[in-house]
Amino acid sequence: MMDYPLLLKSVLYRANTIFPEKEIVSRDFSGIFRYTYRDMYKRVCKLANALQRLGVNPGDRVASFAWNNHRHLELYFAVPCSQRILHTVNIRLFREQLIHVINHAEDQVMFVDEDLWPVIEDLAPSLPTVHTYVVMTDKDTLPETSLPNVYAYEDLIAGESDSYTFPEFDEWTPAIIGYTSATTGLPKGVVYTHRGLYLHCLTALVGELGTDERDVTMPIVPMFHVNAWGRPYCDTWVGAKQVYPGARPQPADLCELIHNERVTYSAGVPTVWMGILNHVRENPSTYDFSCIRYLMSGGSAMPASLTEAYHRELGVKLYQGYGQTETSPVTFVSVPKAAMDSLPDEARFRQLTKTGLILPGLEMRIVNADGQEVAHDGKEMGELLLRGPWVLNAYYKDPEKTKEAFIDGWFRTGDIATLDENGYLQVVDRTRDLIKSGGEWISSVDLENAIMAHPGVAEAAVIGIAHEKWQERPLACVVLTPEARGQVTKEDILHFLEDKVAKWWLPDDVVFIDEVPKTSVGKFSKKTLREQYEQGLLQQAQ
Amino acid sequence: MMDYPLLLKSVLYRANTIFPEKEIVSRDFSGIFRYTYRDMYKRVCKLANALQRLGVNPGDRVASFAWNNHRHLELYFAVPCSQRILHTVNIRLFREQLIHVINHAEDQVMFVDEDLWPVIEDLAPSLPTVHTYVVMTDKDTLPETSLPNVYAYEDLIAGESDSYTFPEFDEWTPAIIGYTSATTGLPKGVVYTHRGLYLHCLTALVGELGTDERDVTMPIVPMFHVNAWGRPYCDTWVGAKQVYPGARPQPADLCELIHNERVTYSAGVPTVWMGILNHVRENPSTYDFSCIRYLMSGGSAMPASLTEAYHRELGVKLYQGYGQTETSPVTFVSVPKAAMDSLPDEARFRQLTKTGLILPGLEMRIVNADGQEVAHDGKEMGELLLRGPWVLNAYYKDPEKTKEAFIDGWFRTGDIATLDENGYLQVVDRTRDLIKSGGEWISSVDLENAIMAHPGVAEAAVIGIAHEKWQERPLACVVLTPEARGQVTKEDILHFLEDKVAKWWLPDDVVFIDEVPKTSVGKFSKKTLREQYEQGLLQQAQ
Repeated sequence: MMDYPLLLKSVLYRANTIFPEKEIVSRDFSGIFRYTYRDMYKRVCKLANALQRLGVNPGDRVASFAWNNHRHLELYFAVPCSQRILHTVNIRLFREQLIHVINHAEDQVMFVDEDLWPVIEDLAPSLPTVHTYVVMTDKDTLPETSLPNVYAYEDLIAGESDSYTFPEFDEWTPAIIGYTSATTGLPKGVVYTHRGLYLHCLTALVGELGTDERDVTMPIVPMFHVNAWGRPYCDTWVGAKQVYPGARPQPADLCELIHNERVTYSAGVPTVWMGILNHVRENPSTYDFSCIRYLMSGGSAMPASLTEAYHRELGVKLYQGYGQTETSPVTFVSVPKAAMDSLPDEARFRQLTKTGLILPGLEMRIVNADGQEVAHDGKEMGELLLRGPWVLNAYYKDPEKTKEAFIDGWFRTGDIATLDENGYLQVVDRTRDLIKSGGEWISSVDLENAIMAHPGVAEAAVIGIAHEKWQERPLACVVLTPEARGQVTKEDILHFLEDKVAKWWLPDDVVFIDEVPKTSVGKFSKKTLREQYEQGLLQQAQ
Repeated sequence: MMDYPLLLKSVLYRANTIFPEKEIVSRDFSGIFRYTYRDMYKRVCKLANALQRLGVNPGDRVASFAWNNHRHLELYFAVPCSQRILHTVNIRLFREQLIHVINHAEDQVMFVDEDLWPVIEDLAPSLPTVHTYVVMTDKDTLPETSLPNVYAYEDLIAGESDSYTFPEFDEWTPAIIGYTSATTGLPKGVVYTHRGLYLHCLTALVGELGTDERDVTMPIVPMFHVNAWGRPYCDTWVGAKQVYPGARPQPADLCELIHNERVTYSAGVPTVWMGILNHVRENPSTYDFSCIRYLMSGGSAMPASLTEAYHRELGVKLYQGYGQTETSPVTFVSVPKAAMDSLPDEARFRQLTKTGLILPGLEMRIVNADGQEVAHDGKEMGELLLRGPWVLNAYYKDPEKTKEAFIDGWFRTGDIATLDENGYLQVVDRTRDLIKSGGEWISSVDLENAIMAHPGVAEAAVIGIAHEKWQERPLACVVLTPEARGQVTKEDILHFLEDKVAKWWLPDDVVFIDEVPKTSVGKFSKKTLREQYEQGLLQQAQ
């Protein structure tokens, strides 16, 4: 067979050749913007020519700092397809993290959405490698700035030719660089190759979960975070109508876009789906969601109550996917097998909250502390190891972290999981959050879920604290609802748990706190909790 | 990203890990055979171990000569996944072609279905490289044979271990070798790599046309011909229930399997669909086809009347794909875009008979006689050139044919096509069957279709014959229906065509023949017709 490289330009080629008339909708700063794939292709060519003019060479890094909109989509194609590397900077990182990742990636040009410009303008003195800034605005004038070499996006591309010959190069060439959201330490860089993204997207298109020309897709998952789960490439490849929800979309904005544009597929984190559900509950009979084929949740575990509410109240299928920055990201998807349709409701919804079935092309091992594969019985826990064409082989310029992350050529996900008889993976905890008690493992996540089922509990995080005899024992850190404060006691919580978890899982102590500390992307920061405990702060909060 | 090779063992791995309970149904010589993916995996391991015992080394060729059944499926996995090469011998080849391809591929072991064994036993003296034969029978005893080294399949694998470690090797390693069906000359060999088949199958699974775990698939397209269009790998990868229709399936067998097994997807040539349609018409209210999601036609052009009859009479979607032995085979699929749903019926059915939209990952050029790309207006004709990861780079051990088949790194399909504004390809003729008249091209296929619309015409083939002034002019070779013989004249045919084709397209002559000569796979052999014309035989037939 031909030595034909797997490059992202294949995606662009097909879209422009056979779907030129299909539509892309973008919630821009001034309203709803619409254009066709043909227009998009021409502007991608102009942008590639502009990068040439700016002196950006093959392999150079170009950063984006932007929401989900059509200009960001143009960067997703123009930068990698012209053999440069797109660094999608996570706009939610803290100041010192931003400075770190931009310098670490050695970005030369930064494309910044107009409303985010003040953040970057302020950082500019700390970004010595960036020689050019481009503000992505649809206004006629640039924001005032004292920085030199600042362009407006539309001005930058206006004079360029709308024709460009995309080069052919090795499929192992980097296309995108992204950074982890850093639950611990500084963000780590992951380099996505053309080959990896190509295969990731092709696989994400397989079967019931694949989108096609008939779909209207809306990626809510940010384009500044793990390639927006691959959606921009997937949906362009198949010629779907695409809807980009723009800056700071609120539940009302998203509901309107679904309703008006007849969205059939969308992807986002559980918080987004929770927000939309609440908005619809508060505004009944306002939106018609009958257009939706299904929705995809990911980024953190989806509560069974959420998928159940979507099914029962909205008549909408809500599935979940699983992955990591290190894996492009999608590796598992929880779609029910046909045989499960006849399960009773409760069992079916529980099934949907499983982490899912492994995607075609990937290989897994689930190993216990001795490195032995666990039984596929849905019970025995082990660390999930992965191999595959879209799993990283190294952190960017970080041999030390790389060394820790691999064992015998397998990527250590850091997640503890079980695999059931039906082939469904269930992630039960993070390796570092698992509580090792007397040679056995306690899942902090399971304990948290059990505690959060208490009506007076708003949030709960469980951490392992050192214990002389048992090595570690669980400590529950609980945030009560306003109504329950001063009413619900430690004993109430422990009593509530008694018939829900094994006796030896019962926390040694329960402390009440005002809120669970969070990371930049809103995940529980148990690292902070453990530090607070060590400093004696948790006891005081009680 | 990891240097993780694209190997067919990924297909087997996923099927066995997450779909072990799914079913494979095979119409065996003694009846309907059923087993699970788990059973299949174990028998594939046994077979791989048996090949080891027979002394078949990595890279050695193992031939199959068989129908679509579960043992053939086992060969599809055991041979390539253990780094040997499967030669799927086309059982429809003529005797001298069979001898040629088996010797050309240097097959060492041949697996032969029990009913086909007499053919191969007879050829054996002419097959010096084959040292072992395996008869695929479910009976206890082997057919009597004077050949040494003949095994029964079940005996061969019975004593082997059902565990086998599939090796990891380069993705460019050959997996399957197949031969063209030889419309002209001797069959040419095409080597399919693991990488090529992997990508071909992943792409074939994309979107509406992709199968998934919920599907029940029945490949009618033979496994002895161009990888059964990739179905065995596709459907195993996604865990579909698979139904293999066995030896010489008749329309009644196929209808029963669809009805009984609740088939949702099937693939075959137009003749098969015609046979099933007629059988259902003759046996109304016998079969329930409501299970069918859609059917795929390929191998030769699908008449509009056929897809229309399926839609109207059976309520079943019949789409078509296009491809060649040289392209693994699928390259285009004719699935309607959403916007076409609102077309009037006639236009919609005509749309469905277009050759289709190019698959993700492939690249095409349509060039005129000067090598210039034609306009994408649905009118201008040119030769279709293709590039892509599952397009051949050379004919096996045939540098001369290889040289003819490529131009600037593009594969010359030998098909003349147009591309319309919606991105749909339409193949209008074979390069060699196109009639070059006065510097313009006449499509012999279009002319044939126009002639075949005459109620008295059963079949028609149009060939170009040498002409002093115009270079070539069309000659129509027409087979009349029994009723029309002696009634319909040459003048009737020409008159019938007058308002259907351009005046200069009208055939210079019409000859009536008894039948159109066919190739081994049932295609019109215009080569034979041209030879007959040169020998003055066509005029006599008139």
